[in-house]
Amino acid sequence: MLYSTILAGGSGTRLWPLSRACDPKFLHALTGTDRSLLQATVDRIAPLSSAEHTYVVTGTAHAAAIARQLPQVPAANILVEPSPKDSCAAISLASAVLARRDPDAIMAAFSADHLIGDEPRFIETIRQAVSAAQDGYLTTVGIRPLHAEVRFGYLKIGGVLSGAARTVAEFREKPSRELAASYLESGHYLWNAGIFVFRVRAYLAELARQRPELSAGIDRIADAWDSPDRAGVLADVWPGLEKISVDYGVFEGAAAMGKVATVPADMPWSDVGDFDSLGEALPTDESGNLVIPGRAEILVRDVKDAVVVSTTDRVVAVIGLDDVVVVDTADATLVCARSRAQEVKQVVEDLRARGADSRL
Amino acid sequence: MLYSTILAGGSGTRLWPLSRACDPKFLHALTGTDRSLLQATVDRIAPLSSAEHTYVVTGTAHAAAIARQLPQVPAANILVEPSPKDSCAAISLASAVLARRDPDAIMAAFSADHLIGDEPRFIETIRQAVSAAQDGYLTTVGIRPLHAEVRFGYLKIGGVLSGAARTVAEFREKPSRELAASYLESGHYLWNAGIFVFRVRAYLAELARQRPELSAGIDRIADAWDSPDRAGVLADVWPGLEKISVDYGVFEGAAAMGKVATVPADMPWSDVGDFDSLGEALPTDESGNLVIPGRAEILVRDVKDAVVVSTTDRVVAVIGLDDVVVVDTADATLVCARSRAQEVKQVVEDLRARGADSRL
Repeated sequence: MLYSTILAGGSGTRLWPLSRACDPKFLHALTGTDRSLLQATVDRIAPLSSAEHTYVVTGTAHAAAIARQLPQVPAANILVEPSPKDSCAAISLASAVLARRDPDAIMAAFSADHLIGDEPRFIETIRQAVSAAQDGYLTTVGIRPLHAEVRFGYLKIGGVLSGAARTVAEFREKPSRELAASYLESGHYLWNAGIFVFRVRAYLAELARQRPELSAGIDRIADAWDSPDRAGVLADVWPGLEKISVDYGVFEGAAAMGKVATVPADMPWSDVGDFDSLGEALPTDESGNLVIPGRAEILVRDVKDAVVVSTTDRVVAVIGLDDVVVVDTADATLVCARSRAQEVKQVVEDLRARGADSRL
Repeated sequence: MLYSTILAGGSGTRLWPLSRACDPKFLHALTGTDRSLLQATVDRIAPLSSAEHTYVVTGTAHAAAIARQLPQVPAANILVEPSPKDSCAAISLASAVLARRDPDAIMAAFSADHLIGDEPRFIETIRQAVSAAQDGYLTTVGIRPLHAEVRFGYLKIGGVLSGAARTVAEFREKPSRELAASYLESGHYLWNAGIFVFRVRAYLAELARQRPELSAGIDRIADAWDSPDRAGVLADVWPGLEKISVDYGVFEGAAAMGKVATVPADMPWSDVGDFDSLGEALPTDESGNLVIPGRAEILVRDVKDAVVVSTTDRVVAVIGLDDVVVVDTADATLVCARSRAQEVKQVVEDLRARGADSRL
C-alpha cells in the first residue's frame, strides 16, 4: 500500500479574494462539486492510499480546518509545522516520520490545491511512478505541455527506463516566453507537476548526501515525533531548518546523479495558480464561461470565456464582456481581464502596503 | 420670485444596483460631492427660488426620505402622489396647487436626477426661459446636441423670439441612429432637457384645452388640496387620471399652436440615464476613470475610461480592463461593458422574472 502525503500550505494570493491567508484555496470548493480542493485530492488518491496511509503536512493556521474536512484521516497523520519552511522541509518531515513508522514505505507527495482530470489515467500514472520508485528512483510526474507556459518549472526528458518511466536529464526553472516555446516545440520537456514518488529511505539518503544539516535537523525531529519530546525538539530545531523547495533542495542534485525518473502523462492537470487557469481546468458552459455561483444569483448577458465565482448570496450581473474574471466575496470584489489574472498578486501586495490586512 | 417644482419620481433601473425601486437614484450622491442628486438640484436652483418657493412632487415611497434630505423645504411644498401617473399629472398637480396659492405664479419644473455643469449659464438660461414665460410661452430648455444620441427626445427650432428664445416648431420622439445623425448635422434640433418654465395659468389653460378630463380631475384635487377633503378627493379622483408624459400630453399640442418656446443652451447636461452617461457627466481622473468610492477601498490597475462606484466598505479591485462599469452595493455587484450600460435594464427585468424582488 502506497503512503500519500498531501502538502497543504500556501495561501494562493493569485486567487484573492477567494483564497486568503486565513482561508487558503485548498479549503475551497473549486472543483465543480461541493468538495474542497483538499478533499478532492484525498478522494482522488483513495484507490492508492487508505485513510490510514494518508498524511497531511500543514501549518498551524489550517490544521484544525483540515482535521474537520478530512475526518477519516487519523490525527497522528496530520503533521503540523511550527512555521513555513517550503516543500523540502515538509516532504522531509513526512518521509522521516514515515521511515520510523514503516521503514520500507513508498511515499507519494501531492499538492492539496491541484485539479486533475481523467482520474483513471492519474491512478495509472502514479502506479507507474511507484514502480520506478521501487526500482530506487526519486520519481516525478511530468505533464506533456499544452502551450508555452511560463508559470511552471520543466523537466528535460532523459533516457528510457522500464515501463513508461524516463530519467530526468535536468530540472529547468520557470522559463522565458521564448524558451517555453522552444521547450514546447522540441518535445523533450515536461511540466513539473509537483508530484513526487519515492522510497522514503532513498529520498532520505539523498537528503543526507545533499543537505546534511537539514537532514540532521529532520532526523532529530522525527526521532522525537512520536514521543513526549516532540514539542521541545521542534521548538529547538525547526526555526533553524533551511527553507528551500524540494526541487532545488534534493531533486536537481539527484537528477545530476541519474537518480530521478519521470512518468510522462497527458492527463488534464492544473495547479489552479490563478483564475485564468481555473477557467481552463474546469468544464465550462457552451459560451466558455466557468460560473461557480455558490448561493449567489449570477446573471451573465452576452458574456464569453469568463470566470465568475461567488462565495456570497449577493446578485452578480455581468454584461457584454469577454475573457473577464469576476470574483465576489463577503468583503471584496475582483474584476480582472483574464489575461491579467496573475497580477492579482500585485493587488494583494498593494492592499498589504495600505494596511488592509483584514482583506488578505 | 420663480417657483421651482422638482419631479422626484422614477427608480432609474438602468442605474441598478445603485438605484433601486426603494432607493432611487435621486437620493444618491452621484454628484462628486456628498450631496444627493436631489439636494444638488435644490442647491442649483437656490439663486432662482427660495426654499419657500421650492416644491417637490413625489410618490408615497420616497416622501419621507425627501423630507429628510430637504429640511429647508416646507412640508406643505412636498406634494405626494398616491400612485405614479407620469409627468403630465405631476406637473399639472403642482401647477394647480400653486395657482390657488399664487395665481400669477411662474413655475419651473426640473427633474430631481439630472446633472448640470456650468451653474452660472444654467441660471442665465432659466432667467431667459422665465422671460419667455412672462411673454406667455410654455418654455423648454433645449441642449445643443453633442452627438447623435438616441436616448433623448428632440426639439425642432422654429422662429426667433425676444432674447435667446426661439419657438419650438415640433417635438420629436427618440430617433433612430440615422435620424439622430441627421438632426445633429442640420443644426435645427436640440435635446429636450426635460426642463419646463411657464406661467401656471397659461399651462393650465392648455391642459384644459387639450386634456379636459385630466384638467377637471386635477382641478378637483387642487381645490381640495389645502383643505380637510384632500385625502378623500385624492382617493376618488387620482386613480382615474390619465397617465401620460407632459411632452405628449401638453407640449406637443401647444407647440402646434405656436405656444411653445425654447432657450437653446450649451451647458453640460446629463440625465444620468445610465452609468455610461454618469461617466460622461462627471470629472474623471487622468486615466478617464470615474471612481466614486464611498467608504470602499478601490484599486484600479491599468484601467482606462471606467466607471467604478461603491456604496459599501468592501474592497473593489479592477485590473487590466478599459471602458468597464463596476458597481458594488451591499447585495449586488454589476460588471458591464460601458457601451452596454443601457442593458442593465434588461438584467433588472430578468431579476424580476426570477422573483428576486428584494434586489430590485
